[in-house]
Amino acid sequence: MALIVQKFGGTSVGDPEKIKQVAQRVLKKKKEGNQMVVVLSAMSGETNRLTEFAMQMQEIPDLREMDVLLSSGEQVTVSLFAMAVKAYGDDCISYLGDQVKILTDSSHTKARIEFIDTEKITSALGEGKIVVVAGFQGVDSDGNITTLGRGGSDTTAVALAAALQADACEIFTDVEGVYTTDPNICNKAKKIDRISYDEMLELASLGAKVLDIRSVTFAKQYKVPIHVRSTFTETEGTWVVEEDEEMEGRIVSGVTYNKNEARITISGVPDQPGIAAKIFTPISDADIIVDMIIQNQDTGNGLTDMTFTVLRSDYQRTMQLLNSITEKTGANGGIHGSDSITKISIVGVGMRNHSGIASTMFSVLSNEGINISMISTSEIKVSCIIEEKYTELAIRALHDAFELDKDTVPEEESII
Amino acid sequence: MALIVQKFGGTSVGDPEKIKQVAQRVLKKKKEGNQMVVVLSAMSGETNRLTEFAMQMQEIPDLREMDVLLSSGEQVTVSLFAMAVKAYGDDCISYLGDQVKILTDSSHTKARIEFIDTEKITSALGEGKIVVVAGFQGVDSDGNITTLGRGGSDTTAVALAAALQADACEIFTDVEGVYTTDPNICNKAKKIDRISYDEMLELASLGAKVLDIRSVTFAKQYKVPIHVRSTFTETEGTWVVEEDEEMEGRIVSGVTYNKNEARITISGVPDQPGIAAKIFTPISDADIIVDMIIQNQDTGNGLTDMTFTVLRSDYQRTMQLLNSITEKTGANGGIHGSDSITKISIVGVGMRNHSGIASTMFSVLSNEGINISMISTSEIKVSCIIEEKYTELAIRALHDAFELDKDTVPEEESII
Repeated sequence: MALIVQKFGGTSVGDPEKIKQVAQRVLKKKKEGNQMVVVLSAMSGETNRLTEFAMQMQEIPDLREMDVLLSSGEQVTVSLFAMAVKAYGDDCISYLGDQVKILTDSSHTKARIEFIDTEKITSALGEGKIVVVAGFQGVDSDGNITTLGRGGSDTTAVALAAALQADACEIFTDVEGVYTTDPNICNKAKKIDRISYDEMLELASLGAKVLDIRSVTFAKQYKVPIHVRSTFTETEGTWVVEEDEEMEGRIVSGVTYNKNEARITISGVPDQPGIAAKIFTPISDADIIVDMIIQNQDTGNGLTDMTFTVLRSDYQRTMQLLNSITEKTGANGGIHGSDSITKISIVGVGMRNHSGIASTMFSVLSNEGINISMISTSEIKVSCIIEEKYTELAIRALHDAFELDKDTVPEEESII
Repeated sequence: MALIVQKFGGTSVGDPEKIKQVAQRVLKKKKEGNQMVVVLSAMSGETNRLTEFAMQMQEIPDLREMDVLLSSGEQVTVSLFAMAVKAYGDDCISYLGDQVKILTDSSHTKARIEFIDTEKITSALGEGKIVVVAGFQGVDSDGNITTLGRGGSDTTAVALAAALQADACEIFTDVEGVYTTDPNICNKAKKIDRISYDEMLELASLGAKVLDIRSVTFAKQYKVPIHVRSTFTETEGTWVVEEDEEMEGRIVSGVTYNKNEARITISGVPDQPGIAAKIFTPISDADIIVDMIIQNQDTGNGLTDMTFTVLRSDYQRTMQLLNSITEKTGANGGIHGSDSITKISIVGVGMRNHSGIASTMFSVLSNEGINISMISTSEIKVSCIIEEKYTELAIRALHDAFELDKDTVPEEESII
């Protein structure tokens, strides 16, 4: 008998009829001989409805009260789900975050799970019940309701699976799994059957929206196999699991992109110790997050260029800030930038054992006439900043060049 | 510095704008130098919306899960209220039933409060905060969410006032207070300034809807002064307090009516020991609540008539049940009844010290040509069952006869 955690998002439980369908799906899995723990989000649209109420009360809504408000959403779906299961003749009990209890720190609206008490759930499972848990929410040590932020229900599901030592955590969503790239851009995009935690982490942090990055971190840490699949079909989706030899044989697993960044260059910066701190401390103090940073080699005149990326929504604010601190930095070459850029990335654990992947990427882009303005690499990914207008072209060219539409064939001879 | 509990119902917090108005009203009272505890219901319409969802899931929704579902309603209003107070520059914290905690028994959807922990509230008040508590809800000793049933927020408010030894409990509603009778029927109806707990209990149990009967019981037990008043005006409402001499001088305080009952008569019942049990045990077993029961004196033939009232919604079911047990009871005179009756009542603590009140009532009705089919009395009320069509006529005639439109003048000479 396996213990399975299944998580269904807002569109999967968008109205009473859909909640019934989810209940039937869970019941089917239970009848196959499994113990079932179900994690639900709020109905789609509910979080927006409540947030609009909050905005009418207070310009910047109080975070503690925001958590009280938003956590009511899952309370509705879990109770309705439990009723549906009972209507179908099986037994079910709902638990809210504080009832479980899912203990978090006190960072309202972005709390981190510290501990999960599994006693009530284990006991209810032992009585043959399906257990449905409100996703996204927890409770701090003072009894205040907390929420985990966007995508928090994924984290709840994976954390529960880890705490319960579940055999699998299935994340149901509106796509069929993780794809080699965005199918809306490249019609050759192919569903990936198995992908490693590290690759999924890179894909999630580089722009793929299918899984919340914190849930993947959790899954990796506790070795919880995640199965990302569609609510609306029975098809197998993508398993996010520990790295294996087959994956290492695959050079590139996916191509992803992110249009949320903007690029800024400060020219003629005096190349002296402490200059980076002078520039980035005020930026950090203004709560602006910097992603890539590149500092060019001093070419002999004692000056250098500093290029970095920020969130596109912070672009104007960052430019203003930099203009106001130009004197302090002594930069004399001006500040320029662009908010019409894309970060395009290739990800694959196979890169560790294959050389020349980055240079292949550069050649492919160059052959299409696409200029690269920044490069950043890690052990298992290469990212390039290009002009936004080339996004689709670059994705299709890279997808073709690395043959991501082909069936995965373990290239065992290439493994070190 | 007084400690005041204020309760606002669903129409008073029906949308964000109204919640802001309530916040302003509470803040004004605080600025006058009071400590404020606020109890809120769910937004008007929300309970119906959630109940409709539940009905789509399960024919008879599971009671535990119903409580999880419905309690989300007040969660929304209390968090929004707290935000509003903060937006106005004061401090506020919300608590749900289980956070307070308001410990109840485990009778889901109609739980009874067993204990209230005042520590968190007292501590927050000490920090100068306004405390807003979700009405209607509590938690049982196993950590399950419970609700107190219709009118439960009134009970929450009064119970909190009792536990906190508050100086007053103000119940804000859409009427200006308790009236001598229904102003929609009798335009001479007059707001009562002060009324005793016992009179209010009788009025509430006999049909007046302004206060939940359990909250009045609580208030009486713990001597909590209740102030029933309008959300929409600043006018003083009705104080429900301990009986005093002025009240005793008032013979009749109010005329009320209830159209929710139906009358049934079983004729030709053998007048022998155990016959009442034979009739009423199966009725009670069917969860049918019987209100008034009258058994006429045996007129010499060993037979009697038994007349009683049930809820109008149980009328058909009761008639069918009685027909099926006729043989067992040996009744031979047939079963007949009416579901177009009204119970009309006069209430007043002054009755204890005045004779002839009941006979005055009978005369007034008789003079209007209204036949009385059943009579029931207690120390401070007289109820008559009449035909429904005479309801308005009876109310106006009684209101006139007992001069309820006149100012209350203490008739001290009449007090024993």
